[in-house]
Amino acid sequence: MLIVGERINTSRKIKGEPVIENAVKARDADYIADLARKQFEVGATYIDINAGTLTMGEPEALEWLTRVVQDSVDAPISFDTPNPAALERALAAYDQGKGRPLINSITAEQTRWEAILPFVLKYKARVIALAMDDSGIQPDADKRLSVAQELIGKLTDAGIALDDIYVDPLTFPIGTGSDVGVAMLDIIEKLMIQFPGVHTIAGISNISHGMPARKLLNQAMTVLALGKGLDAGIIDPNDRYLMALIYATEALLGRDEYSMNYITKSREGAFEGI
Amino acid sequence: MLIVGERINTSRKIKGEPVIENAVKARDADYIADLARKQFEVGATYIDINAGTLTMGEPEALEWLTRVVQDSVDAPISFDTPNPAALERALAAYDQGKGRPLINSITAEQTRWEAILPFVLKYKARVIALAMDDSGIQPDADKRLSVAQELIGKLTDAGIALDDIYVDPLTFPIGTGSDVGVAMLDIIEKLMIQFPGVHTIAGISNISHGMPARKLLNQAMTVLALGKGLDAGIIDPNDRYLMALIYATEALLGRDEYSMNYITKSREGAFEGI
Repeated sequence: MLIVGERINTSRKIKGEPVIENAVKARDADYIADLARKQFEVGATYIDINAGTLTMGEPEALEWLTRVVQDSVDAPISFDTPNPAALERALAAYDQGKGRPLINSITAEQTRWEAILPFVLKYKARVIALAMDDSGIQPDADKRLSVAQELIGKLTDAGIALDDIYVDPLTFPIGTGSDVGVAMLDIIEKLMIQFPGVHTIAGISNISHGMPARKLLNQAMTVLALGKGLDAGIIDPNDRYLMALIYATEALLGRDEYSMNYITKSREGAFEGI
Repeated sequence: MLIVGERINTSRKIKGEPVIENAVKARDADYIADLARKQFEVGATYIDINAGTLTMGEPEALEWLTRVVQDSVDAPISFDTPNPAALERALAAYDQGKGRPLINSITAEQTRWEAILPFVLKYKARVIALAMDDSGIQPDADKRLSVAQELIGKLTDAGIALDDIYVDPLTFPIGTGSDVGVAMLDIIEKLMIQFPGVHTIAGISNISHGMPARKLLNQAMTVLALGKGLDAGIIDPNDRYLMALIYATEALLGRDEYSMNYITKSREGAFEGI
């Protein structure tokens, strides 16, 4: 599973406090570098950076985050913004030696499509494609599936390889309806069958928004989605139990030959206390 | 999910010691009653009893277990034996007021089929159908699937309702091959689609036999199997984390309307410390 570490996001709060936003505003490089390293050490493939709550200051903040993260870890960055100005500054500052960037995200909305696509092409980026268009976010699973299909068509027409496309079916909170989990799983399963080689990705923690014991729902949904073919996730890799369940699930799904990675993680102590 | 509590089984060892077998041999009713109550309190639908390691003394032991369990909890019993003599004594002692018995298990092996079927019919029992026949246990998933299909046909021909049949696809340890997990999930999915109304059940903990951090594999496999339609499990309901993940999974799969059971369990403290 490709893991996009979600922790460097100014909208995240810890015990109600916007600690990431505060650190970004204060340009506290040590704090951010530490968050990047912590995620990288436990297996994050990409480090996501999001400064969306800063609105006016987002471009400068995203460029600063880019420099801090790439100076602290040897991992590529996931650029998490719908703002072309922020994307432009951040990508211009990005050291491609760290690996191909991931742009998070493009959609089928006309304005966003036209604004974001040039960056995907110019920087030979991988790209997260959110299943939404100008009709907005569709709760109906069939509609989201057809938007996702349309996006895959548009991206491949633009010359982007299926292997560089990460489709995000959008995660609705289970509190909004008992059927949203099954709908999301269905979209993932259908896309992975219909487009061999494409990837699916999800910001899974949104499933538990407003519910008690959120980690349990996030963990169970991650395992269920892996079972339907999901092969990437925007998650908190420092949730040790979640990561342990991911390793177990990959062994069970035959994606970890002879369970070697699972056994190695166990020997390294990754499951201690679990 | 229908939960068959697996803990009263003489083959189970705790830290290498056959503590259940010792308790059964010593006719320690308090110990067994406590195990039954502990499982019932946390949601076991059936209490499984297995005295298979006692060989010569199995019929007497299984009758004794039946009396102890039904005197201690208000739950039906799962009679876990291939031994007709043990089944006969235990079922004769069983108080049907506790609910319909579950016979664990019948197979398509000619001798076992002929020996067990009369008990299913006489006691109007539910029955676990193991996917094996006289050719033995087939590692090949397609062969196990066809044995399972044959068994469902034979059972319904004998007048047993689909709703009373719990098909067990057999759980192979993931250590025996990276594909055994996917094979098992495929059998479950196909049976649940082909025979609407039938149930699937599994002794999931066998998946982790010989592996480190067994609970993680058991938990992940339970979530994956639920995702494929599994609706019953022979499990340890006193694994609080496993039960919590089951509640979360049922909410995510839309089997818990408005997540009411999940929210209730949370309020009751079932997820405390998790």
